[in-house]
Amino acid sequence: DQVVITAGRRIGPAEIGGCMALGIIQLRVATKPRIGIISSGDEVIHPEESPRPGQVRDVNSYSLGALIEEAGGQPVLYGIVPDKLEVMKSTAEKALAECNAVIITAGSSASARDMTAEAIGTLGAPGVLVHGVNVRPGKPTILSVCGGKAVIGLPGNPVSAVVIAGLFVVPLIEKLLGLTARLPRPSVLAQLTVNLPSQTGREDWVAVKLLKNGKWATGNGEVRYLAEPVFAKSNLIFSLAAADGLVRIPPDMTGISAGEMVEVSL
Amino acid sequence: DQVVITAGRRIGPAEIGGCMALGIIQLRVATKPRIGIISSGDEVIHPEESPRPGQVRDVNSYSLGALIEEAGGQPVLYGIVPDKLEVMKSTAEKALAECNAVIITAGSSASARDMTAEAIGTLGAPGVLVHGVNVRPGKPTILSVCGGKAVIGLPGNPVSAVVIAGLFVVPLIEKLLGLTARLPRPSVLAQLTVNLPSQTGREDWVAVKLLKNGKWATGNGEVRYLAEPVFAKSNLIFSLAAADGLVRIPPDMTGISAGEMVEVSL
Repeated sequence: DQVVITAGRRIGPAEIGGCMALGIIQLRVATKPRIGIISSGDEVIHPEESPRPGQVRDVNSYSLGALIEEAGGQPVLYGIVPDKLEVMKSTAEKALAECNAVIITAGSSASARDMTAEAIGTLGAPGVLVHGVNVRPGKPTILSVCGGKAVIGLPGNPVSAVVIAGLFVVPLIEKLLGLTARLPRPSVLAQLTVNLPSQTGREDWVAVKLLKNGKWATGNGEVRYLAEPVFAKSNLIFSLAAADGLVRIPPDMTGISAGEMVEVSL
Repeated sequence: DQVVITAGRRIGPAEIGGCMALGIIQLRVATKPRIGIISSGDEVIHPEESPRPGQVRDVNSYSLGALIEEAGGQPVLYGIVPDKLEVMKSTAEKALAECNAVIITAGSSASARDMTAEAIGTLGAPGVLVHGVNVRPGKPTILSVCGGKAVIGLPGNPVSAVVIAGLFVVPLIEKLLGLTARLPRPSVLAQLTVNLPSQTGREDWVAVKLLKNGKWATGNGEVRYLAEPVFAKSNLIFSLAAADGLVRIPPDMTGISAGEMVEVSL
């Protein structure tokens, strides 16, 4: 037998066409992994409710749900859980039993984040592997494996949650789908409009808007886009909605200067 | 009122999150445009049938259907139509009445292609606007407007049909969806491994496979991928399934030399 599509490849128009040409009208494909989402925090309310002082609407269940669906997973929402260890533990246990992986967004206080790690620690061996990553935004990230399934604690801050989910949850879904022949992440080269400072030793992800360069040219390798940072408080999810992509500042750099070419992940 | 999402923007995770943060739990969005697909040709059979000499399985209904769905449209299949003017006319009329746009893939003979143009000419004013484009693969493309709706005749060759649909049908769907804030097409820069000759005055699209460069580097602007053309007879849809993207050779070039950086559309 000749291999016409390598296992682990995403099925697109060309693959479907190729199968039809050969009379292959049935294919065995991967099941969409079920990813449980738990939103936690005493201050978190349902989006249809009006927040009183100190309260915030639940953004993460829905933005992460959309991201998971885009990546090929099936989001399963477990709602909002208060900062109570027992409730968190029982909800996480249920989610872990019903799903292939679980994501928990932590409450905003340090004690709420510690509680998330404590709850994850009770779900199965080996438990928490990483507590805190040197990435901005997203320091309080928790990476863990409980009884063979990944459990990821994400920052409660909506912008951080989406950025960090892009770094850790999307690759997890691709792994669970068995994708081996992965295309490079879609990106474009653009010229940075302003200086972007950064701390050495920390990886930064900065949301940018793409502007067409006035000197638009169709040739290869020309400056076709300008990358303009979308500055906003990091908890404003609309700073991401206004952005076209993210620029990575590697940990070994102290920043990127205006005029340099950067790769913008779309 | 403050505008939080500009009309014409595709709704993704960040936009959904932003709406939830503001308590906006209902949105008016565009209806997916219905795109009718007619596959024509006396030699075309259903994929589940075994071809006798001179027959080919219908690939286009399914590869184009997948492409239309990916672009945000809703494919409506009108099956295989023989090279008979009256049958083509009545099928196209029905498709045009029920859909927002219609795509017809022509049979392989020149007379079959002329018949497609003749049938389109009867559907409404102004009719055929362009018959033949200087793009390889895809010369026998027909662009027309009948009673305010686009009707596009594509080459029957499966590779040409998918490439030309990417050039003309995907932008049509984006227009029908009302997408105004379009992201750049995802692409990567890669170094070409061999010389690619081309004819001046003709635009060429060449399928390539992306190989990771041995000298892998994470910095910006480095050569991270090599682009290796997938040479195959242009009617082999599997040449596209084996490819990661397409390289465009603009009409004002006589080719691209090995070692040059090219933009690969994914």
